[in-house]
Amino acid sequence: MTTTRLKGVLAPVITPFHADLSVDKARLVAHSRWLISQNSGLALFGTNSEANSLSVEERMELLQAVVEAGLPPARMMPGTGCCALPDSVKLTKHAVSLGCAGVLMLPPFYYKGVSDEGLFRNFAEVVERVGDARLKIYLYHIPPVAQVPITLPLLERLSKAYPQTIVGMKDSSGDWSYTQSVLTGFPHLDMFVGSEAFLLAGMRGGGVGCISATANVNPAAIHALYASWQAPDADAQQAALTATRTTIQAFPMIPALKATRAHYAKDPAWVAVRPPLVALTEKQRAELGTSLEARGFAMPGLAG
Amino acid sequence: MTTTRLKGVLAPVITPFHADLSVDKARLVAHSRWLISQNSGLALFGTNSEANSLSVEERMELLQAVVEAGLPPARMMPGTGCCALPDSVKLTKHAVSLGCAGVLMLPPFYYKGVSDEGLFRNFAEVVERVGDARLKIYLYHIPPVAQVPITLPLLERLSKAYPQTIVGMKDSSGDWSYTQSVLTGFPHLDMFVGSEAFLLAGMRGGGVGCISATANVNPAAIHALYASWQAPDADAQQAALTATRTTIQAFPMIPALKATRAHYAKDPAWVAVRPPLVALTEKQRAELGTSLEARGFAMPGLAG
Repeated sequence: MTTTRLKGVLAPVITPFHADLSVDKARLVAHSRWLISQNSGLALFGTNSEANSLSVEERMELLQAVVEAGLPPARMMPGTGCCALPDSVKLTKHAVSLGCAGVLMLPPFYYKGVSDEGLFRNFAEVVERVGDARLKIYLYHIPPVAQVPITLPLLERLSKAYPQTIVGMKDSSGDWSYTQSVLTGFPHLDMFVGSEAFLLAGMRGGGVGCISATANVNPAAIHALYASWQAPDADAQQAALTATRTTIQAFPMIPALKATRAHYAKDPAWVAVRPPLVALTEKQRAELGTSLEARGFAMPGLAG
Repeated sequence: MTTTRLKGVLAPVITPFHADLSVDKARLVAHSRWLISQNSGLALFGTNSEANSLSVEERMELLQAVVEAGLPPARMMPGTGCCALPDSVKLTKHAVSLGCAGVLMLPPFYYKGVSDEGLFRNFAEVVERVGDARLKIYLYHIPPVAQVPITLPLLERLSKAYPQTIVGMKDSSGDWSYTQSVLTGFPHLDMFVGSEAFLLAGMRGGGVGCISATANVNPAAIHALYASWQAPDADAQQAALTATRTTIQAFPMIPALKATRAHYAKDPAWVAVRPPLVALTEKQRAELGTSLEARGFAMPGLAG
């Protein structure tokens, strides 16, 4: 366990697959090691990790593999929020038992239009059933995908009921007015913006960092802005980060991240995704590679 | 295994829980037995079963219990479609191994805006990995909840690629124009409408039955219309069914079904739901009971 709160940049670590679509532990460990070397923490099993395309057992095996490889649980915030309460409890207990500094928790996302009361009970049951003072939960607000929001009244109720456990949020709403409401109304919560496009604004507003898709490929530069957000060139750094993100985001994000990793490591195995996602075509991969090279984009130390 | 195609009325069997929210096998078996006695098949693990609030292991244990209790797999269409391909494959294999006549398959529902290509690959991988000629898949179209539709082009591609396996659909869109397009364009597919409010229209259009929430509490009357849809009083029967449904639907559907079961069996344990759902309040339960009694609604043979 750690007593230090997570902060800075974390990558929702992309999950590599073998050709038969089974999980590729060795590549996951290698990528995680590189991310740590680039000052990125590991938000394993996020949206960009295809977490919900993995079974509970696969998620536990992969987390175990990354921890056993010697990577620091103090820099890990695995996703553990599922539709089914027993799954969320099992994954959360497992993450806490391995010493992970926190967990990122989606609301149950099958039913739509559910009440805050029902969502409160879901999170409360997880907290009570895990029953471990080490547990630190970051609520995952991503209405464009989950379609089930963490409303401000829910956030207030949860953070009051479990002030030692509900310690922060990842906000992937893309809605700055929501982010600002949390920053202003809940200064005791640690706010990670869900995209580095909001990193500078987030830091200026009292946030603690970002958990962003593109931290999988551009971690050092994102960390540099995090570490120097009060420097005179911060706006210029932000503009450069956003431009790189835009280049990648011209393609579907998850396949594009994997294609970028494949391109710079000259390791085409990385392009595999599980259905319902679809890998970029050869043509798209070539176009993305050309666009990134034209920007002078690099992934230093990747072989290391 | 069975060679007879499923048809008629099936209930998406509501799932009972103990006070600690663990699954209640005995009550599930008793309710399933009652449904069969009332001419309803068992679409275990549908939306109204809180299927996605159950772990994969719980779903397998419950299906096993219902089959071991001697209820006929030839009348079963368990839900086996999950976000994660390995889960869908595991549940589908299990259902086929127990001799279930069919499976009801949701698309993976976490990512939104996914391509038909990705969805095709998901279903194709399940078919190929299960690799069993006995497998009969009913695609589950429920865009109001899953938010991921089974489009007509996807349906066409799947039914052409796997004509012996993709044999039908449950349409819970609530959009009659979609239902009609499938009835007209895919006459070889077995159409189950997702609500008995559409039962008569569905039968007149060439459908084979319905899989409806309220079949959990009103199966005999729904079956009666199915069996006599060409009778002179069919429209009157339809109107009565729809009125009963409307009475229940004045409350949140799943808690209301459970409250109805609890009321007529004088068995309050039935009201429990898993988060993120919330049980009806005592007041709501009393109101619902009064409304149903006022309509003369009954659940005959429930104690049997």
